Amino acid sequence: MTVRLGLLGAGRIGKVHAGAIAAIPAAKLVAVADAFPEAAKALAASSGAEVREADAIMAAADIDAVLITTPTDLHASMIEQAAKAGKAIFCEKPIDLDVARVRACLAVVAEHGVPLMVGFNRRFDPNFVEVRRQIDAGTIGKVEMVSITSRDPAPPPADYIKRSGGLFRDMTIHDFDMARFLLGEEPVSVFASASVLVDPVIGELGDYDSASIVLTTKSGRIAQISNTRRASYGYDQRIEVLGEKGLVSADNLRATNVEIANGSGYLREPLLNFFMTRYTEAYRAEITAFVSTITSGAKVSPSGDDGLKALLIADAALRSVKEQRAVTLG
Amino acid sequence: MTVRLGLLGAGRIGKVHAGAIAAIPAAKLVAVADAFPEAAKALAASSGAEVREADAIMAAADIDAVLITTPTDLHASMIEQAAKAGKAIFCEKPIDLDVARVRACLAVVAEHGVPLMVGFNRRFDPNFVEVRRQIDAGTIGKVEMVSITSRDPAPPPADYIKRSGGLFRDMTIHDFDMARFLLGEEPVSVFASASVLVDPVIGELGDYDSASIVLTTKSGRIAQISNTRRASYGYDQRIEVLGEKGLVSADNLRATNVEIANGSGYLREPLLNFFMTRYTEAYRAEITAFVSTITSGAKVSPSGDDGLKALLIADAALRSVKEQRAVTLG
Amino acid sequence: MTVRLGLLGAGRIGKVHAGAIAAIPAAKLVAVADAFPEAAKALAASSGAEVREADAIMAAADIDAVLITTPTDLHASMIEQAAKAGKAIFCEKPIDLDVARVRACLAVVAEHGVPLMVGFNRRFDPNFVEVRRQIDAGTIGKVEMVSITSRDPAPPPADYIKRSGGLFRDMTIHDFDMARFLLGEEPVSVFASASVLVDPVIGELGDYDSASIVLTTKSGRIAQISNTRRASYGYDQRIEVLGEKGLVSADNLRATNVEIANGSGYLREPLLNFFMTRYTEAYRAEITAFVSTITSGAKVSPSGDDGLKALLIADAALRSVKEQRAVTLG
Amino acid sequence: MTVRLGLLGAGRIGKVHAGAIAAIPAAKLVAVADAFPEAAKALAASSGAEVREADAIMAAADIDAVLITTPTDLHASMIEQAAKAGKAIFCEKPIDLDVARVRACLAVVAEHGVPLMVGFNRRFDPNFVEVRRQIDAGTIGKVEMVSITSRDPAPPPADYIKRSGGLFRDMTIHDFDMARFLLGEEPVSVFASASVLVDPVIGELGDYDSASIVLTTKSGRIAQISNTRRASYGYDQRIEVLGEKGLVSADNLRATNVEIANGSGYLREPLLNFFMTRYTEAYRAEITAFVSTITSGAKVSPSGDDGLKALLIADAALRSVKEQRAVTLG
Repeated sequence: MTVRLGLLGAGRIGKVHAGAIAAIPAAKLVAVADAFPEAAKALAASSGAEVREADAIMAAADIDAVLITTPTDLHASMIEQAAKAGKAIFCEKPIDLDVARVRACLAVVAEHGVPLMVGFNRRFDPNFVEVRRQIDAGTIGKVEMVSITSRDPAPPPADYIKRSGGLFRDMTIHDFDMARFLLGEEPVSVFASASVLVDPVIGELGDYDSASIVLTTKSGRIAQISNTRRASYGYDQRIEVLGEKGLVSADNLRATNVEIANGSGYLREPLLNFFMTRYTEAYRAEITAFVSTITSGAKVSPSGDDGLKALLIADAALRSVKEQRAVTLG
Repeated sequence: MTVRLGLLGAGRIGKVHAGAIAAIPAAKLVAVADAFPEAAKALAASSGAEVREADAIMAAADIDAVLITTPTDLHASMIEQAAKAGKAIFCEKPIDLDVARVRACLAVVAEHGVPLMVGFNRRFDPNFVEVRRQIDAGTIGKVEMVSITSRDPAPPPADYIKRSGGLFRDMTIHDFDMARFLLGEEPVSVFASASVLVDPVIGELGDYDSASIVLTTKSGRIAQISNTRRASYGYDQRIEVLGEKGLVSADNLRATNVEIANGSGYLREPLLNFFMTRYTEAYRAEITAFVSTITSGAKVSPSGDDGLKALLIADAALRSVKEQRAVTLG
Repeated sequence: MTVRLGLLGAGRIGKVHAGAIAAIPAAKLVAVADAFPEAAKALAASSGAEVREADAIMAAADIDAVLITTPTDLHASMIEQAAKAGKAIFCEKPIDLDVARVRACLAVVAEHGVPLMVGFNRRFDPNFVEVRRQIDAGTIGKVEMVSITSRDPAPPPADYIKRSGGLFRDMTIHDFDMARFLLGEEPVSVFASASVLVDPVIGELGDYDSASIVLTTKSGRIAQISNTRRASYGYDQRIEVLGEKGLVSADNLRATNVEIANGSGYLREPLLNFFMTRYTEAYRAEITAFVSTITSGAKVSPSGDDGLKALLIADAALRSVKEQRAVTLG
Repeated sequence: MTVRLGLLGAGRIGKVHAGAIAAIPAAKLVAVADAFPEAAKALAASSGAEVREADAIMAAADIDAVLITTPTDLHASMIEQAAKAGKAIFCEKPIDLDVARVRACLAVVAEHGVPLMVGFNRRFDPNFVEVRRQIDAGTIGKVEMVSITSRDPAPPPADYIKRSGGLFRDMTIHDFDMARFLLGEEPVSVFASASVLVDPVIGELGDYDSASIVLTTKSGRIAQISNTRRASYGYDQRIEVLGEKGLVSADNLRATNVEIANGSGYLREPLLNFFMTRYTEAYRAEITAFVSTITSGAKVSPSGDDGLKALLIADAALRSVKEQRAVTLG
């Protein structure tokens, strides 16, 4: 079986996914849509797909599944449209910045019984996959503490910040999902301390650029997350999981491992600096998993519910900062 | 000038300090006291000192300074006695487990104008000293976030736990001091999440064995601390400081750096497993600094006030766990 | 301009190159040939190319360049045939195991003025490229010593050994090329010590499985190479270059950087274990460079002459082992 | 039993050994001699020993063993004098630069049946000790290849070079001993390539500053050594031993493991830069082993014969450079 795909959104991440599809024998990119016809046309040309309108893709009989890579504010309605059309759906995170809207959208998906995968790409990073595999294999015994260091190389422009939903819903949401992925239990409370240390403009917009967050599960497992919008040394993405029998950790990635030694010391290059480069393999594996889920009929993961849960933690974290207390989760 | 020292307490740590003194040309260990005469006698013999009663050491004209390495419950009264006798004082942490008692003790010290150094040995660890030196040199610019991983290899016996004052006053207190040492600003609030994940007996004693703590300063700098009483891979003592211009970090220590590679992978030995081995150099440097402070008349650091401040944070952390909110400091 | 390619040999390495071609916009795989029709058919199907006979590919007007990935004993004659047909040529190393045959073949290539690239893939490994770039940038000043550790995970079957030309012509030849690539001067003498330590069958076939080789240039620069056919910990491929101002080095690669720590120590996974996995990026970059050379008309590197020079060193190394002396080159 | 020691030579290394003795409960430094009375006096004062003439130390009834740390040209005659006086002897390497003189000296030692330890301090480095321990424990199975990287941070002054006996007898001799220590078999041939790449003055004095050496044992085990007089990044001392079942390696040492990360990359400090700092622990352990050998009556290692064997390899290496061939050993 070949899964026939429609791509809604021919921007940066749409292109990445089109490239991933090209390498999957069981998948074929049939059509591309974008609000900017030139973007759709260019991507269609390079990927051997047709340009179609979004509505046409939704309605097409020759398309089994859609990838939604449009701006965030279109996600929920497009998911609903695709669900109603009976398509399998992959959507970039977040489904929406508003919890109520997400719930409504997920209700529609449930009603139509279509699979929905949410783009928490980091779950597919080979290093993090291996961390999880070791946990599942019992290598470290019962999980006790998860430490996530997640730092962007540089703050996004003010314009992005405005539409982002804020640090927790935009950036930490990946870490919330990762904490859930690794803790082995649902967090029941969240505490967050957040500051404006990097860029006062971010503060003026009511957002934060630096944060430390503590999640706790019912049995007392603890996850801590360290975030900043500026790590001068690159895109810092590390994970450590402590269990009763040991520690499993995943370190950062670089373009090369070349080292220069001289009288100043030993120098390795900075980290990969861009999320799409850092997570190249993860994006590939993510789309491969989506296609494979459709062909096998397996359960979709991460699901719409995973998207909702991470958003709920983000909202609670924001409340925690404002109220300076641990906020109980659902 | 030779500083003539009296050692009060010939136990494990007393022996370490006696060894350090032997290697300092400007210092001489004159006398040793211990509640167990055999212990005093053995240490006196191996270090070329006399055995005396504690009171005699306090009163001795041929002793300039005392090192108090007795059990914790004797610290405060001995400090007071030594202060009244005009001795310079080095005392192992903590001064006392009770804040009021510490304040009273420090008042006596202040009244008699003697120097008092508190044994936060980690401030003298060559790696952590270098981290601080890099911060002071401006290498990473303004400090933003401090991350401390501080994990014991195995929980102490129940008997020790009972007298310890609990996780925060016994173990995390070192990390609170280190956070203060590195943040460049005083913490103004603390949040702590603590659990019993390692040993139910610890929970039955009303204590915790696993914790994650977040400290925040007035300008929004954040320190996070990860503690556990059980790290199967050794005594895990790491520090990272993120600044606007970079990251400075200190890693763990091992006995050797030998690596074995075979079909199972690349294996390095576990971490140094015992605090006295891990911090051998720190103990040496600490006593050297104490002696040097006396001869030079320089300001003592870490001072009695540093001891008090760390204890205040520990108390607030405990309240935070119970009230599940950030507790304001001082 | 699109470079139209014919692939001669649809085996393991042929498939790798077909994959690389698929990802190069400026290249198109037109036809595939193989002595085993099924192999050609399968690769043609998955890559969108036609199956043709080798002779037909050589003669085809719609093919600009050929990739020769047949067994070694066909390389030289196929190169000659392609040269006579005016095709640009990429050929896996070695051109031939016999120096005289190589010289004759290169004469034909020269006569017809076609570009010939020899598949010393390691020159395109991103790590080694970066080492060379640092040298060229003057980072370490004048090169003095090159150290190459080059170890196979496990010995090939006896049948392979028989046809291989022996350790130096089959395996070390890559290291000889790498030494030339990094020394900045031609070696003028070679000394080799070789043993049978791994598998007596290799010795019975007149070959060696372990060797240490020293190359010296006119100005006294020294390269040393350490080879074995069995490194239980994976495919060990490291380079260090010492210069007057510093050292630049490239380390090994692993599938992930996940680390497990417990009472036994800190364990990372073994090295990538297979040359095609270890050098995946190198193979891609190699074919990309070949195509780019054709479109730009730039000088081919590594050239046929590079192939010859490495073979001459291999022959001299073998003589050195037998005569237990340094053998002068060229 | 307390071993009573006399120290002949109060220079740099003499001071190090005096410090080591002070920390050994079973040893006592009784007397110090030096051609410069001031040097002897200073060291005697700081170590609690007496100043005596060398002859008086040799003859003293209250001295059991001597440490010879004088200039090289006095070693052999002092060893002989001490042997005749029935003292146990520790002597810095080399016994002499001339093989015949060494043989004569060892004959005298043998005649008088006194223990003689030669100061190959690296055998006592905790890292290298651990490498050897792993080999002895069978961790890597049968040893096949030893790789030693041994590089000085900067060339010594011309005056030192003149008296040194040349690169192989002065510097590589340590590596020859280490190769013997690790190979598990005696080398039967040596090939050396040596150059003047660092300092032309060294060449004018007839010496070399850069070398690569290959040793081979009877069964074909191979050791390779990389030497230079100038490693801008510090005192580079690494060992790797490949066995049939794995690789065991020891890496370099630094003063701290602090790392700085910023836009330029990740920087660690250069290596420990001075042999006496790098091998501090080794010097301590060496003298401890010497004392312990005397008290236990155990076999001395490394022995005078080890000193001779390393010198024989050095002489053969020099011949190899001149004759450009592998030279057969003993």
